[in-house]
Amino acid sequence: MATVNKAFRALASGYLFPEINRRVRFWQTNNPGKDVLRLGIGNTTEALPLALREAMIEKINELGDRETYTGYGDEQGDTYLREGLVEYYKKFGVELESSEVFVSDGAKSDAANIQAIFATDSIIAVTDPAYPVYVDSNVASGRSRGWDESRGMYHDLVYLSCTEENSFIPPLPSERVDLIYLCNPNNPTGAVMNHAQLKEFVEYARFHKSVIIYDSAYSEYITEEGYPHSIYEIEGAKECAIELSSFSKFSGFTGVRLGWTIVPNTLMCADSTKGELNRLWNRRQTTFFNGASNIAQRGGFAALSGEGHKQSRALVAYYLENARLIREGLEAKGLTVYGGVNSPYIWAKTPNGLDSWRFFDQLLDQCNVVVTPGGGFGPAGKNFIRVSAYNHRENVVIAMRMIQEHLTI
Amino acid sequence: MATVNKAFRALASGYLFPEINRRVRFWQTNNPGKDVLRLGIGNTTEALPLALREAMIEKINELGDRETYTGYGDEQGDTYLREGLVEYYKKFGVELESSEVFVSDGAKSDAANIQAIFATDSIIAVTDPAYPVYVDSNVASGRSRGWDESRGMYHDLVYLSCTEENSFIPPLPSERVDLIYLCNPNNPTGAVMNHAQLKEFVEYARFHKSVIIYDSAYSEYITEEGYPHSIYEIEGAKECAIELSSFSKFSGFTGVRLGWTIVPNTLMCADSTKGELNRLWNRRQTTFFNGASNIAQRGGFAALSGEGHKQSRALVAYYLENARLIREGLEAKGLTVYGGVNSPYIWAKTPNGLDSWRFFDQLLDQCNVVVTPGGGFGPAGKNFIRVSAYNHRENVVIAMRMIQEHLTI
Repeated sequence: MATVNKAFRALASGYLFPEINRRVRFWQTNNPGKDVLRLGIGNTTEALPLALREAMIEKINELGDRETYTGYGDEQGDTYLREGLVEYYKKFGVELESSEVFVSDGAKSDAANIQAIFATDSIIAVTDPAYPVYVDSNVASGRSRGWDESRGMYHDLVYLSCTEENSFIPPLPSERVDLIYLCNPNNPTGAVMNHAQLKEFVEYARFHKSVIIYDSAYSEYITEEGYPHSIYEIEGAKECAIELSSFSKFSGFTGVRLGWTIVPNTLMCADSTKGELNRLWNRRQTTFFNGASNIAQRGGFAALSGEGHKQSRALVAYYLENARLIREGLEAKGLTVYGGVNSPYIWAKTPNGLDSWRFFDQLLDQCNVVVTPGGGFGPAGKNFIRVSAYNHRENVVIAMRMIQEHLTI
Repeated sequence: MATVNKAFRALASGYLFPEINRRVRFWQTNNPGKDVLRLGIGNTTEALPLALREAMIEKINELGDRETYTGYGDEQGDTYLREGLVEYYKKFGVELESSEVFVSDGAKSDAANIQAIFATDSIIAVTDPAYPVYVDSNVASGRSRGWDESRGMYHDLVYLSCTEENSFIPPLPSERVDLIYLCNPNNPTGAVMNHAQLKEFVEYARFHKSVIIYDSAYSEYITEEGYPHSIYEIEGAKECAIELSSFSKFSGFTGVRLGWTIVPNTLMCADSTKGELNRLWNRRQTTFFNGASNIAQRGGFAALSGEGHKQSRALVAYYLENARLIREGLEAKGLTVYGGVNSPYIWAKTPNGLDSWRFFDQLLDQCNVVVTPGGGFGPAGKNFIRVSAYNHRENVVIAMRMIQEHLTI
């Protein structure tokens, strides 16, 4: 007599992006022939760098020869890639051991699964707004009694409100929390915490024996000095933080799928023994996962240095130039905008206090532009939209022109 | 004050294959220069079929052109592949809808994660022996109080004992169970349930509102008539069974990573509404997963028909010929063997009632051959070893000669 996991029923309506897709499809049905300008989902659009493609094709050719064929690799990732990532971190002054590096099929999976090694009654802090996966994975894992319609938040989660007043830098929790999710540079606001701000969180976590889940998927978009590329640049972070990251936005690997997670051997929580959290994640990965695609791993390795790194950096620069055009375009229209300097995301205030889904519909109707409603990232986003720099330059230019010419504010 | 998930601590010693690797590495250190003949892990060894490689290279080239580049696809898999799998199932007389097909990064992940949509207090039935992932994923998810040393089993799980007496066909549960894991053809025994035997399980599940998790990862190895390739060949199975499968053993995709799971829209459990289990798995996948690699998906599609299918079938035939050589080789040495006809696995009885880890060590020491100790799959395997047909032909031949010449029974 099987029964369903009630925690899944506690999840509110669908995941944000499928909901956007649904609205866009509906709009397209009613507007046949019109092109949609997609600045919504952070989905890369430009050609995969040549050096990465060459590396992957080389791997495929090796798979075509029984002498060089490889089947299952280690669940934690191929040694050369784990060591390549150790080298990569040295650029930020961070020393890791390869046993602390776990290669995965992308940061989303890890962001969703990392909570599994912690107690079910853990109290979760998320920023508001936040990437929905942090929230939904915890709700589906039984850490909330469900959606609180009156507050527009889930019961039992602690929301760290990021607003114009605090420049979208999350405040420290004012109550007990066990896990703290931070994304830096932030998705969706594009804000970046500096060393001093991040240090406060590290000190908080060490004092309270909390664990920080730090998502650095956008760290390659940092253009200004003074911002950490890795949380391990902060002293003491290896005792209290797990870092997730990805090749998706750095190398155009959104569809190829490759990411990684760092679980330091020295990471501790209130009741863990030395090295236990690293071993638990290792056990989780060896049991629930079978390694990232060996083809993707070869491509990811090529992105870490030499020509492949240079080409990946050029890709990042392209999207950052889009971000600049969007920022300036929206500003020229009189909108108040944030982010987009060390981030591919622009966080724009809706005009006249409009609800973000209303403004989403308006932009779609008047300008054929798809953005992401800020409300989908949490209640603090309800008067913001996230505009993504991931599109062809010419589409960004057209979108800005459409907004300039057709948006009524 | 973060604390660890105690359910993970309930897991007994490491996952089977890492433990084997540890022993082999130790042996190699003590036997420098000696070659190990690996017939342990079911890890493919032969060249990836040309048609699949060509398809993947074509996809990589498309990724190199911004006009044909694709980023994130649907978490459930690309439409063309989901539809290709619907076509594939028609060969077995099974009609599916593409909304019932979920493409994944391999059957192991799905086998481990599928339990998440069911209640935490579900009672789990596994065959004994069983693929360890079914067991470990449920223990780690809180469905056992831990390891029972005296019985060599986990508390609270129900073991369906597969022995020589029942020809390794699992008996129906004699007590209430909620989820039943079946692997057919079976890993590790190589036994295959026929339609009538499987029908009993389907009827049991429908009567008790249990759900069958059916792993058909080895269905392409069925060579004899009268065995189901899919559980949906059995009437009523769409109301009570989820099917997992994989390109790993069919097309040499162990390292490339690609699999799929079928959750019928008509699947029900005791408290589900119509279509809810399909929607819950959809929600699980859209939240915790971001789709299989788009490169792998293109390769998998090529394996489903035409030249790619023919080449994949040739690969299966190669491993099955290895299986025949192993079966006959072990029989010639006087061992009692099972499986290896509709399966790449031979389930061989240890001589003189030897413990399977002892026989594992003996085969490694005397013959340089690595097998998998049956005890790693459950207590009913403690006097068996699993011999895998996944190696080059010449190594299989040498392994059989080594066993013939050096094994003392």
